[in-house]
Amino acid sequence: MNIGIIGLGLIGGSIGKAITGLNKHTVYGDDLDNNVVLKAQLVNAIDYKLTENDYQKLDMLIIGTYPRAFGSIVDKIAPKLLDGTIILDIAGIKRSIVADMEKAKKAYPKLNFIATHPMAGKEFSGIEHSSVNLFNNASMLMINVHCDMDTLTTAKDLFEAVGFTKIVLTTPDEHDKIIAFTSQLAHIISSSYIKSEQAILHDGFSAGSFRDLTRVAKLNPTMWTELFMDNSDNLLNELNSLISNLNKYKTALENKDEDTLFALLEEGNEKKIYIEAKTRSWKRS
Amino acid sequence: MNIGIIGLGLIGGSIGKAITGLNKHTVYGDDLDNNVVLKAQLVNAIDYKLTENDYQKLDMLIIGTYPRAFGSIVDKIAPKLLDGTIILDIAGIKRSIVADMEKAKKAYPKLNFIATHPMAGKEFSGIEHSSVNLFNNASMLMINVHCDMDTLTTAKDLFEAVGFTKIVLTTPDEHDKIIAFTSQLAHIISSSYIKSEQAILHDGFSAGSFRDLTRVAKLNPTMWTELFMDNSDNLLNELNSLISNLNKYKTALENKDEDTLFALLEEGNEKKIYIEAKTRSWKRS
Repeated sequence: MNIGIIGLGLIGGSIGKAITGLNKHTVYGDDLDNNVVLKAQLVNAIDYKLTENDYQKLDMLIIGTYPRAFGSIVDKIAPKLLDGTIILDIAGIKRSIVADMEKAKKAYPKLNFIATHPMAGKEFSGIEHSSVNLFNNASMLMINVHCDMDTLTTAKDLFEAVGFTKIVLTTPDEHDKIIAFTSQLAHIISSSYIKSEQAILHDGFSAGSFRDLTRVAKLNPTMWTELFMDNSDNLLNELNSLISNLNKYKTALENKDEDTLFALLEEGNEKKIYIEAKTRSWKRS
Repeated sequence: MNIGIIGLGLIGGSIGKAITGLNKHTVYGDDLDNNVVLKAQLVNAIDYKLTENDYQKLDMLIIGTYPRAFGSIVDKIAPKLLDGTIILDIAGIKRSIVADMEKAKKAYPKLNFIATHPMAGKEFSGIEHSSVNLFNNASMLMINVHCDMDTLTTAKDLFEAVGFTKIVLTTPDEHDKIIAFTSQLAHIISSSYIKSEQAILHDGFSAGSFRDLTRVAKLNPTMWTELFMDNSDNLLNELNSLISNLNKYKTALENKDEDTLFALLEEGNEKKIYIEAKTRSWKRS
């Protein structure tokens, strides 16, 4: 296939590297920053810079920009694409993107739209940190926006070829609700945790829990602000629930109430063990 | 040396395995649960069960029980130890232990007391999960309770032999204040985070941040209740500071205030990068 990628950051760049590594497709890439396009060529994330003349060659266009840029990019490029071209996005929120896709589908009914979210990442941004192996054994979330089974299969086959081992069909609502917890809340916690006055003193006094809790405090603030704001309803639910849970531990400590503290810890311990067992049994089935 | 270990859990068992692995010392071990002693012998965490007849042979006694058991164990065993024996504990809080040690030092001035905290662990408890490599490249915190340089050197040499690469001398106050953040707060966060209604739905929708944030929700509730209660002043400071930080993100989201949300994320990002750079420069110096 001829595959275009617009937005060559960590994820766009890694997808590019993984696809060029298959030696089966031709990858055209573009980015707001032309230096990034040059770097992407140097590290084999793309074969060529994507120009307007290439649009009509594309079988698939992957949009890896910040989510709010999606609509205007599609408005600009869609009229120049061939019927049947698959437009994919890879952003971390899905309700707003799918709304943009629904609108574009009405205007360009012969294009195919799939919203996706690769469940892989790093605490680093940019083409410099992209990796051909980023998606190995990862899960890919897909939302079909009125496209046919052949199109879904084409996307699925490509994802499996670049390393994904689990393809999950989901809905925008389900996606944004669960992701608010599994990813977004985790980033807000890490960003809050690192602000303790003790953080700078950790060296020698810390091990795995500190490392785990602070890893994703390093993030791209522009991108995550967009992701959080455009999923603020779900994220606020999660944040309120977390703060309410933390306050239970706090009250138990203030009251020197060992029984309640024990019960809170035991409940978390049992829930973690239950979830691990459940996940294992799903993987077996 | 003849080394006794009382309390053969994850840490006591791992220290035992690491010491017997040196083929230089003889390790005697005991535990409240005699099955644990048998298991420890089977997996080479100890050479022999520690009995009353062995006390007078010991050069070093490592106490690896829950922290509150420390005082009564020392009261029972100290009268039977030879002058010069080193008594070490390995618990995760130090003010209460060092107070117990100060008291014991007055009663038995010829014994040597060192409070330690190995900065290594796992989200699993018990001899079954102990590992000969647990302390490789880890940091060891040490508090000298009126013992001489030779004694400190004996302890340091043993710790380096079993894998520790950084030995930090600290004080009970400094230890408990920093640990409240680097370890204790992290466990409370993880225990709270896992309680979200979305947690059970994570499979396929999660990657590194969920894994990191939930790892230490699995814990030994009895031990952590003791550790938290006996450091509740420091832990409450950290918990209050975290909740106050989380509320800033919450308010920004509620007010749809993108600038503030961006600033909060940027501040966390910069602090994480600063701390990493600072830690690297210390390691170089």
